[in-house]
Amino acid sequence: MLAAEYTGDRTITVEEREPEALRPGEVRVAVAYVGICGTDLHVFHGDMDARVTTPATIGHEMSGTIAEVGPGVDGWAVGDAVTVMPLDWDGTCPACLAGNQHICQNLDFIGIDSPGALQQLWNVPASTLVRLPEGVSLRDAALVEPVAVAVHDVRRSELAPGDKAVVIGAGPIGVLIATVATAFGADVVVAEIDANRRAAAEEMGLRTLDPSAVDQVAWVNEWTGGAGADVVFEVSGAAAAVLGATSLAKVRGTLVVVAIHSQPRPIDLHRLFWRELRILGARVYERPDFERAIELVAEGAIPADRLITRVVPLLEVASAFETLEAGRAMKILVEVAR
Amino acid sequence: MLAAEYTGDRTITVEEREPEALRPGEVRVAVAYVGICGTDLHVFHGDMDARVTTPATIGHEMSGTIAEVGPGVDGWAVGDAVTVMPLDWDGTCPACLAGNQHICQNLDFIGIDSPGALQQLWNVPASTLVRLPEGVSLRDAALVEPVAVAVHDVRRSELAPGDKAVVIGAGPIGVLIATVATAFGADVVVAEIDANRRAAAEEMGLRTLDPSAVDQVAWVNEWTGGAGADVVFEVSGAAAAVLGATSLAKVRGTLVVVAIHSQPRPIDLHRLFWRELRILGARVYERPDFERAIELVAEGAIPADRLITRVVPLLEVASAFETLEAGRAMKILVEVAR
Ligand SMILES: [Zn+2]
Ligand SMILES: [Zn+2]
Repeated sequence: MLAAEYTGDRTITVEEREPEALRPGEVRVAVAYVGICGTDLHVFHGDMDARVTTPATIGHEMSGTIAEVGPGVDGWAVGDAVTVMPLDWDGTCPACLAGNQHICQNLDFIGIDSPGALQQLWNVPASTLVRLPEGVSLRDAALVEPVAVAVHDVRRSELAPGDKAVVIGAGPIGVLIATVATAFGADVVVAEIDANRRAAAEEMGLRTLDPSAVDQVAWVNEWTGGAGADVVFEVSGAAAAVLGATSLAKVRGTLVVVAIHSQPRPIDLHRLFWRELRILGARVYERPDFERAIELVAEGAIPADRLITRVVPLLEVASAFETLEAGRAMKILVEVAR
Repeated sequence: MLAAEYTGDRTITVEEREPEALRPGEVRVAVAYVGICGTDLHVFHGDMDARVTTPATIGHEMSGTIAEVGPGVDGWAVGDAVTVMPLDWDGTCPACLAGNQHICQNLDFIGIDSPGALQQLWNVPASTLVRLPEGVSLRDAALVEPVAVAVHDVRRSELAPGDKAVVIGAGPIGVLIATVATAFGADVVVAEIDANRRAAAEEMGLRTLDPSAVDQVAWVNEWTGGAGADVVFEVSGAAAAVLGATSLAKVRGTLVVVAIHSQPRPIDLHRLFWRELRILGARVYERPDFERAIELVAEGAIPADRLITRVVPLLEVASAFETLEAGRAMKILVEVAR
């Protein structure tokens, strides 16, 4: 079979190799499509070399069908269409014991900490499988993982139907959060300074504003009858956006920090205090997020055709990274199937 | 009657003047004791001159008895022992309509935005009165307001019996939060770099640690079996404390920002994300906080004798501000009664 390997130094190659032996409790998945995300790009850039053991087969947004069922696995059969929730927890740390397995203190994020989906035959613990219903194409199903991220962020915010939400940043996760929040019944605006990203978001039916052209605090106040937004999602990763985000939220409103900020960021704690705001961290997802994400993809609530800029064959995987790096694509899928 | 007046430029004088006319819906309170708090000190320093109209009679931590009941007020009688929840909201703004009157967008904080308790006869809306039970001395009852702040902070944190809590900062509010959290069934440690404040906290029966001498992250990890604290209260106002606070909290733990940070502060948003932390702003109190605070004072759960460093007569009010400013007292009460 073919497998992509990140070997360090911004290099990804495709190699022919033998599939790993299938262990008890595992299932071998014939991978169909793999989406490339920002975290994969970070690996490609070498930002995560301290965490990733090279050569590394990465990739964790995927769809496929079961090729072989390992010993001791019940409930799955060859040919079943699946996606994978790429989390493997220890079950014994304080976070797990408190019911927060998805952010286990010793979490193995499959595709970063252990081999990922950019290979034609991928062995995963059966516990990570999520069944795909009939009628969902394998191509669209490769979006389930990032949609589950968005569902997790929206559920964590406790956004209610009729709420007004601001999404800061119209990258792939930002537009998914805006789309999911809309599907959950919220009234949403996406704040984005880049004109191309704004245009792409608008083509997906999202309302946008340009914070470099509009006084966004005044705009949100007018939009919300002087209250402020119920929920603000910070998805831009920009320091200025974080600092301004607290001014957009209503009394007792919520700011969900979705973007990864590798540096500490100044936060307006006086505003936090004055309005009794709530700031929430949100990371990965739980199984209900995957299930809801699959429903949304199945219902056509996710604009898959607009999100998927391109599909490239596995042998051209390196070009996918280069195109994404240049900012010339929203989402690129790698077609892995033999 | 006598009234204290802040006239600007670090000056508080005591003047003889006529009581204000009593309006419908108001009650005239014969003030017994007034506590001086950090906010009053800020006024004295001139930090709040943009908000305070001089000459200003400030003061909002108090106890007293009803001297006269105005027209249209039911349920109160001359001689009733009371304290005052010094919040007057408009009832019409989005925050009020959503049930968050205590942080009304147009809140009148009585004692800052309108005349306060440092006068012998003080007219307040009857809606602000809170009844004191028999057996609570008027001296101790002057602590109810700051205890209500602490109760509000602890209730807002959703701290549960058996939780482990870190309180950063052993000033008056810090020790009250630690005391209230203990009364709510938590296991508490107070982190404080100042040896005198640590000693004072220990005399109140609180466990302390010195973050300048101990690796507090390691200490908290050991204390919590590797989990981290359920709740961290930031009461120090120090930038370094805020930056470090996120490292003390467990997965899905809570950081309550109680101190007023007039500058934006760097926050470790990567830790917020990684552990799905929650940061909450908390401000003033609601009526249930006052009622619980009165219970705690009545039960003797609050170490009033240790908190009240000194009681000075109204004519010496200026000296109270100077002593507090010099950091030589935890809490000073002004005896206002004629
Ligand atoms: Zn775990
Ligand atoms: Zn209001």
